[in-house]
Amino acid sequence: MLLTVEEAQKRILAHPLPIMPTERVSLLQAWGRVLAEDIVSGDDIPRFTNSSMDGFAVLANDLSQASTAQPVALRVKGTIAAGHPSAQSLAPGEAYKIMTGAPLPEGADAVVQSEWTQIPEENQVLALAAVRPGQNVRPKGQDIQRGEQVLQTGSVIKAPIVGILATVGRKEVMVYRKPRVAIIATGDELVDPGQELEPGKIRNSNSYALAASSLAAGAEPLIFPPAADTQEMISQRFRQASSADIILSSGGVSVGDFDWVKNVLSTEGSLELWRVNMKPGKPVTFGTLHNRPFFGLPGNPVSALVTFELFVRPVIRMMMASHHWQRRVLSLPLYQPFSEVHDRRHYVRSRLVQDGDRLYVWPYQKQDSAVQSSWREAEALMVVPENSGPYRSGEVLPVILLTTDS
Amino acid sequence: MLLTVEEAQKRILAHPLPIMPTERVSLLQAWGRVLAEDIVSGDDIPRFTNSSMDGFAVLANDLSQASTAQPVALRVKGTIAAGHPSAQSLAPGEAYKIMTGAPLPEGADAVVQSEWTQIPEENQVLALAAVRPGQNVRPKGQDIQRGEQVLQTGSVIKAPIVGILATVGRKEVMVYRKPRVAIIATGDELVDPGQELEPGKIRNSNSYALAASSLAAGAEPLIFPPAADTQEMISQRFRQASSADIILSSGGVSVGDFDWVKNVLSTEGSLELWRVNMKPGKPVTFGTLHNRPFFGLPGNPVSALVTFELFVRPVIRMMMASHHWQRRVLSLPLYQPFSEVHDRRHYVRSRLVQDGDRLYVWPYQKQDSAVQSSWREAEALMVVPENSGPYRSGEVLPVILLTTDS
Repeated sequence: MLLTVEEAQKRILAHPLPIMPTERVSLLQAWGRVLAEDIVSGDDIPRFTNSSMDGFAVLANDLSQASTAQPVALRVKGTIAAGHPSAQSLAPGEAYKIMTGAPLPEGADAVVQSEWTQIPEENQVLALAAVRPGQNVRPKGQDIQRGEQVLQTGSVIKAPIVGILATVGRKEVMVYRKPRVAIIATGDELVDPGQELEPGKIRNSNSYALAASSLAAGAEPLIFPPAADTQEMISQRFRQASSADIILSSGGVSVGDFDWVKNVLSTEGSLELWRVNMKPGKPVTFGTLHNRPFFGLPGNPVSALVTFELFVRPVIRMMMASHHWQRRVLSLPLYQPFSEVHDRRHYVRSRLVQDGDRLYVWPYQKQDSAVQSSWREAEALMVVPENSGPYRSGEVLPVILLTTDS
Repeated sequence: MLLTVEEAQKRILAHPLPIMPTERVSLLQAWGRVLAEDIVSGDDIPRFTNSSMDGFAVLANDLSQASTAQPVALRVKGTIAAGHPSAQSLAPGEAYKIMTGAPLPEGADAVVQSEWTQIPEENQVLALAAVRPGQNVRPKGQDIQRGEQVLQTGSVIKAPIVGILATVGRKEVMVYRKPRVAIIATGDELVDPGQELEPGKIRNSNSYALAASSLAAGAEPLIFPPAADTQEMISQRFRQASSADIILSSGGVSVGDFDWVKNVLSTEGSLELWRVNMKPGKPVTFGTLHNRPFFGLPGNPVSALVTFELFVRPVIRMMMASHHWQRRVLSLPLYQPFSEVHDRRHYVRSRLVQDGDRLYVWPYQKQDSAVQSSWREAEALMVVPENSGPYRSGEVLPVILLTTDS
């Protein structure tokens, strides 16, 4: 009995997942984190009515007839620069030279741009165009009003949000702590990079690739040494890992004689689901262990990364309390025919190709899950429904987007 | 004379930009960085022919007639687990029980899956299905051949590449150093968050938002204190900033009496371009200062971020030697009509909306560049050509994608 990917995702996310505690960080440390407080502005933004142009602060009414043919002369009372408080006020027939961002003097209601003025003599300006009341003026509170909630808990703090936080005067902010993800590869055959490879051994690559995926998801990875294929060793490593917020293993979840992960999970925790109707990655395990969410990912490196993307990343984002925990899915036409048909949902490693005005999805040729090297760019996963296909060029399929760079 | 955005981008990128020096980092530190060496595999991957299934290693020829109705009996000589060297060899009529990833014994050429076997008595197995030679076997070197170049300098190191580096045994790798971006906001009116706001003053938000954008681009931001509006102060800050790899200022690039940035640039460096035909962000300056690429961005917070995205980010990515320095541009239909028409190219802050099977672009309503708060999500910039529009719902426009999360 295989679960569908949707059913597995639903069951995993329906599980009571702990939300991370909060911590206070500086604005720059906050970038990429998830906001753990609602932000209310203590000020109007802008704080005072100001000029949006370099020019002359005026009374619009004075210039109602102004044009290039009939310039209107005003007396210039002085210059107002940004950053300097304005005690000035303006009467009919008067103007102040004013810089972008400088406070509008009392009595003025518009700014005529420098480009539409001439200076015939000192202390005089000729306005060559009419202005509406409010023209080239940013009223106090136009962007944000005092007491307004400008940001909501759960927002991912990207550059514009860092800017808004600074604008309302915050230099520190509450965010959710990064979930700590314990990563344990299992298998007698695994040897870490840099150590000697004896016959029959292979490199432990999953621990590093899954740690990188955890970083990309916004978590803090903790790599544990690989566990040998015995129930005792695996059980011991899992206990060591229980200080983390999420426990992740790779390997040992299949049906072999030495696949102990499920045993340990059933004995010492709870096994919630085991096999999912997908390719690559069928044997993916979810449960709880030492009261932590536990994922037993397949040992195959491609399967481990694809199941991480579909099942672990959303859980990390949920535990960080992010509003944004799903990847963007595009509908894109195939650049080349895709003829593989499978009884399992197929997540096909793909590139994106711009051809003229259109963006296409172009699967890598080698989709064997043993072939790591065909996923260097990690641009997208094309989703081929079970028992569907073959597909012709131009047919449209859903595509999970993994990067914004081309 | 306004330059087009393309012309400005072309001129900036045609400028001789220094490539960062390289440094050696650990695999996990390498995540998100740009590879500064070609990677050649010293091994075949897999290193030895192995089983892709749990089952029995056999000679395919022995089972050519096997079926559920006519099982073929083989003598089981032992068990081969992953991680243990196999000195075993197999003759016709024999089988080894074998685990996924374990080395194939000499003489075997296929694996029959456990699911298609029965164990009638100890040391015997019944095969219930025929297998092809090579079935359920991963041949040595199938993924990567010894001496093959698997990764190229200039690749962005994402999780699958971290996995490939570990697979070929690397625990450290050469990457390009992160460009250091000096950030200097200019203006008498600017006060950093956390400090007291006197009348006429506003918050310095650009330094923080641009620093966050620099982090997002893969650079290391260095925030300098804001510079007051005098040529001397600006010149002094720029000199202090010249230890960085890129110098970025905001404000002071317009036509006001106190806009000194261009003066300093012309006097102490070179001014290459000044005004670009875009909205927001017309007054954007590029040149060199103290032999560093210099950008004078507009003081308006929205304009500063949009011009960073279009002009600074590509330069940072180029200086990191990344092959991927452009954002993905999608062609998406409008979710609502867009009626603003401008004589400048308009970069419209937008959300993306999934409705049924289709993804739409949905501009935020307040596009005034003074309005920071309408860009909280920073999902996309819709590109509206100059003097075009109004557009109806469903009409398709280019959209610069800023995030993969929905």
